[in-house]
Amino acid sequence: MATAVTPPRGMRDFLPADKATRERALGVIRSSFAAHGFDEIETPVMEDTARLHSGLGGDNEKLGFAVLKRGIGPADLVAAAEADDLLSLTDLGLRFDLTVPLARFYASHRAELPTVFRSIQIAPVWRAERPQKGRYRQFVQCDIDIIGEAGPLAEIELITATVAALNNLGLSGCSIRINDRRILSTMLATWGVAENLTERALITLDKLDKIGVDGVVAELAQLGINTAGLADTLAGFADAGWPDPAAAPAWLDTAAYTDLLALRAALPGVSLEFDPTLVRGMGYYTGTIFEIKHPDLGYSLGGGGRYDGMIGRFLGTDVPACGFSIGFERIVDLLAGSAGDTDRAVLLVHEKDADPAALVALKSALVADGLRVRLEKRTKNLKALLERAGQAGYGRFAFVTQDSVDPDELVFKPLGD
Amino acid sequence: MATAVTPPRGMRDFLPADKATRERALGVIRSSFAAHGFDEIETPVMEDTARLHSGLGGDNEKLGFAVLKRGIGPADLVAAAEADDLLSLTDLGLRFDLTVPLARFYASHRAELPTVFRSIQIAPVWRAERPQKGRYRQFVQCDIDIIGEAGPLAEIELITATVAALNNLGLSGCSIRINDRRILSTMLATWGVAENLTERALITLDKLDKIGVDGVVAELAQLGINTAGLADTLAGFADAGWPDPAAAPAWLDTAAYTDLLALRAALPGVSLEFDPTLVRGMGYYTGTIFEIKHPDLGYSLGGGGRYDGMIGRFLGTDVPACGFSIGFERIVDLLAGSAGDTDRAVLLVHEKDADPAALVALKSALVADGLRVRLEKRTKNLKALLERAGQAGYGRFAFVTQDSVDPDELVFKPLGD
Repeated sequence: MATAVTPPRGMRDFLPADKATRERALGVIRSSFAAHGFDEIETPVMEDTARLHSGLGGDNEKLGFAVLKRGIGPADLVAAAEADDLLSLTDLGLRFDLTVPLARFYASHRAELPTVFRSIQIAPVWRAERPQKGRYRQFVQCDIDIIGEAGPLAEIELITATVAALNNLGLSGCSIRINDRRILSTMLATWGVAENLTERALITLDKLDKIGVDGVVAELAQLGINTAGLADTLAGFADAGWPDPAAAPAWLDTAAYTDLLALRAALPGVSLEFDPTLVRGMGYYTGTIFEIKHPDLGYSLGGGGRYDGMIGRFLGTDVPACGFSIGFERIVDLLAGSAGDTDRAVLLVHEKDADPAALVALKSALVADGLRVRLEKRTKNLKALLERAGQAGYGRFAFVTQDSVDPDELVFKPLGD
Repeated sequence: MATAVTPPRGMRDFLPADKATRERALGVIRSSFAAHGFDEIETPVMEDTARLHSGLGGDNEKLGFAVLKRGIGPADLVAAAEADDLLSLTDLGLRFDLTVPLARFYASHRAELPTVFRSIQIAPVWRAERPQKGRYRQFVQCDIDIIGEAGPLAEIELITATVAALNNLGLSGCSIRINDRRILSTMLATWGVAENLTERALITLDKLDKIGVDGVVAELAQLGINTAGLADTLAGFADAGWPDPAAAPAWLDTAAYTDLLALRAALPGVSLEFDPTLVRGMGYYTGTIFEIKHPDLGYSLGGGGRYDGMIGRFLGTDVPACGFSIGFERIVDLLAGSAGDTDRAVLLVHEKDADPAALVALKSALVADGLRVRLEKRTKNLKALLERAGQAGYGRFAFVTQDSVDPDELVFKPLGD
């Protein structure tokens, strides 16, 4: 009956030490966002299939886990097979991001929310991606969004709160790459890219980091775009910094760039890098887009942008919106597992035949004094027992004997000794 | 395009005030359990279908949400229809409790865990029940379990930690109803219930609260059980307290009752009520069973018991186990929404055209001083704005003017005024 037992493919269990690190990091992120005036909400992990497949989730819609309808039978299966309509067997799906649920939540509860609503969502999402290193089928996202604010105050507050959270986690030194969808549109138009090719050209441009200038030029040429001089333009983007607006190049959308300069001036404590090749994959972005860049890493730690058209898709009325999402799994991998206050966490090592009532009374007395207390039955390999407890964050231990069931008689020693 | 948008049937959104109450309560429960030496773990929300349907989940197995396999097509549907095997279309399901995942987790990681493993799981589960008042399709359970401890130390630690959590939540006055499956077995045998009818007789007995003595006797008679004198026995159970072991009635299993008396002696601070009619629904219990009883409520706030046979079903080796689960949704309904430290939460009310950079700089300075700060654009109905912020836990507000962008110049007033 005993077979290899593992969590489902691409999903993970968290043992105590990892779970503690995760909860500590989530606590820091949560309190950082809350201090900046954001309010946490929660939605169910499932949403109606129709909403998940409304076209707002981009490629992620295809990666959703679908939930089988309850109460269906063979006839439903046959009908679905004949219509080649697998979706007819499912009414719910697990969310693949926190943005579609937020738009649905806002549409459901607008009357109960402030005019400008600043939300926190810290929750898992699911994507049936091919599992690979650092990519999981269940992972946590930490999103903040501001709904109802059309002006730059939204971007400034989101970036300020996110940088504060990163700093509070001890991840200083991160910079924020920033761009604007309008700059990308104007740039592609200047290059002569037809509007029906814009999306494909953006997908290509988004791969600049991976396939380089030559790769991008080759792919754009395949789309029938005139790429004369493009290699030089693309090469010039690297480390170009913030162009002088008085001598702005022809491809630079002046209005959008002026807005970015204003953001830069409003965020003096943030290392803000203008990157005209930053695309961000999702189709719903309408204005500013940004990503977290860690000095030592080749991938982004999170990102976001303005998506003014999306809420209207659920609500029927357009409402401006802007969001910033931290990729929690990537963040937590960078954190050293600090064990918290180990000195207040103590181990009571007892004999196998010790009186359980006396042990628990002793434990309760120490807990009442503010200690975290674990009972441990003495084993032959005491060293291994103590080592394991040290890894679990316990800092001191004492032997419990007949004479030491009075808390004042216990002799605590540091676990390191 | 705009239609009524609601969360899926039987599932709930949590707005900021409710979410804050929930998180505060979860924090209290989490830290109470941790102080008593339990370690938190996490498993994925999904488990393999085969494991969820291994017979350990009782009736809950039928209530599971099943996840459609990825990459299946019409031919798979036809095959499933022909075999009348809907489960063949699903490889994963959402967990319906935290006990089956814990058994799977323990089997996966036994080598990495202490000999006696005290786990905390605080997480949502899903059941496709008919939605009704107070019953949801997604709800949070708070479970503690001790795996690897065969003796009463497990029960004593579980009940102590649970009562501590309830007290820390401000829910004092709860008592614990306790019984033992062995007492139930002996009692039914004394009544002449055949072994193949034991389970059905237990289901009937479990309904004593609802259908009364006469109802139970009638149902047992329908099973062909000789019910002569049973009504008197059942009526005698009410408020019988703890029978004198020296004069124990015939139906009382002496060995199991002696163990319960020892638990009672070991838990002097706990109001422990012996109830020989307490059944607990799940088939996997093997020894002690217990439930939380609130003085004012007709339903249980949680419960648990010993399930020594279950881990072995996953591991291939029997390991003793005992657990206690708090029904979080019922608990949180009893808590008043206390708003935390409202004095440290302030509102900055600003004009529509205020400089966003100056506003955010002001906000950041106050956040750095340890305040929680929300910007609010001044609206015509200032009173409504302030009331709403008061409900959201903000205690003070100040108007931001050209002259007050220096934090020291701000004049804060209490929100209640």
